[in-house]
Amino acid sequence: MCIQWTKGDVMLVEFTIVPLGSGSSLSSSVAEVLNVVDASGLPYKVTPMGTVVEGTWDEVFRLIKRCHRITRRQEERVLTTIRIDDRKGAADRIDAKVRSVEKKLGKVLKK
Amino acid sequence: MCIQWTKGDVMLVEFTIVPLGSGSSLSSSVAEVLNVVDASGLPYKVTPMGTVVEGTWDEVFRLIKRCHRITRRQEERVLTTIRIDDRKGAADRIDAKVRSVEKKLGKVLKK
Amino acid sequence: MCIQWTKGDVMLVEFTIVPLGSGSSLSSSVAEVLNVVDASGLPYKVTPMGTVVEGTWDEVFRLIKRCHRITRRQEERVLTTIRIDDRKGAADRIDAKVRSVEKKLGKVLKK
Amino acid sequence: MCIQWTKGDVMLVEFTIVPLGSGSSLSSSVAEVLNVVDASGLPYKVTPMGTVVEGTWDEVFRLIKRCHRITRRQEERVLTTIRIDDRKGAADRIDAKVRSVEKKLGKVLKK
Repeated sequence: MCIQWTKGDVMLVEFTIVPLGSGSSLSSSVAEVLNVVDASGLPYKVTPMGTVVEGTWDEVFRLIKRCHRITRRQEERVLTTIRIDDRKGAADRIDAKVRSVEKKLGKVLKK
Repeated sequence: MCIQWTKGDVMLVEFTIVPLGSGSSLSSSVAEVLNVVDASGLPYKVTPMGTVVEGTWDEVFRLIKRCHRITRRQEERVLTTIRIDDRKGAADRIDAKVRSVEKKLGKVLKK
Repeated sequence: MCIQWTKGDVMLVEFTIVPLGSGSSLSSSVAEVLNVVDASGLPYKVTPMGTVVEGTWDEVFRLIKRCHRITRRQEERVLTTIRIDDRKGAADRIDAKVRSVEKKLGKVLKK
Repeated sequence: MCIQWTKGDVMLVEFTIVPLGSGSSLSSSVAEVLNVVDASGLPYKVTPMGTVVEGTWDEVFRLIKRCHRITRRQEERVLTTIRIDDRKGAADRIDAKVRSVEKKLGKVLKK
């Protein structure tokens, strides 16, 4: 799968997919999802609590739907959380948001 | 708009749409969104912190996209949070989830 | 436990506590938590996706800590999500928020 | 302020503080919060969608309360979201969680 990424009306979206019923370790499930994200061609960043991607509504939700489905196919119940930051005219924010705060503070933050 | 609701692979989804830049009162923006939700034909429930709907992935995300867009058209920046509870074979959970907890407790809860 | 509820600087807070590793049914764990919430004396409302309480920062977080701990004692891993809506001078919003939207719309919503 | 960080029963916690009513740019408000986080002595990581900290329940919530208050003092309404990942016996997970997924995948992810 290769989602073509077009500049324009892009949003920043964080998502977390939690399968219930497979015990307390999630790393296999997360690894499978991140493989799909990495192959998608969308800009992304993995954080300790989720995955941030940047793209249009349709690009991002096609990807999240795919990741959610992969997890659901193997588990009886899946909880997915999605947070969207959609700002007019804004793009390339996956790194720029933190940089603009660092500039304001005049110091480098841990990231 | 009337989304036809088909039984089957339905999920419970809560969403909250927050416009930034229009001041601290959100009730006009929320009213507009709930008008769309109410007209959608999907089962829903309004809570003090968001709106819960039940439907298939495509039904629910078509609705949320529409609500998000309506808000974004009027505001420069919109933050939307979505939480999915997707359980195999489960349907009509918008009331049933709380009832099953009440049954377990043997008492009626505030809802 | 009985938390005394004082008017004043109160916030609306929704929380959801998800134990991992106990299978896909959460109703026993949720029932235990809601028993504590119901006994706390704080105004609350159970929704299909969480529990909403109203109180001061300290009242609310004492309660959530207690609920989180009870769940963690029985499970190896617990994911808890908390959303705060803190508005100056606002109180009794657990019902009032939805009512103010209904007034704006001129119709009664499902809740 | 210097919170002393003790090993032991630590949790991973992400939080996001959103002031309403100050327009669509949040970077000044975020900068002020991150100044406090950076000075707290707790391990942290800034992501495009929030801040992740690691510490005991009391350490983390003392910090988040302080950050929430600072923002609320300047704004009429503040929405704060908190997500906790509390795993028995786990520590130093702020980097380790992603590394364990990379190991499983056998490749380096963007972070």
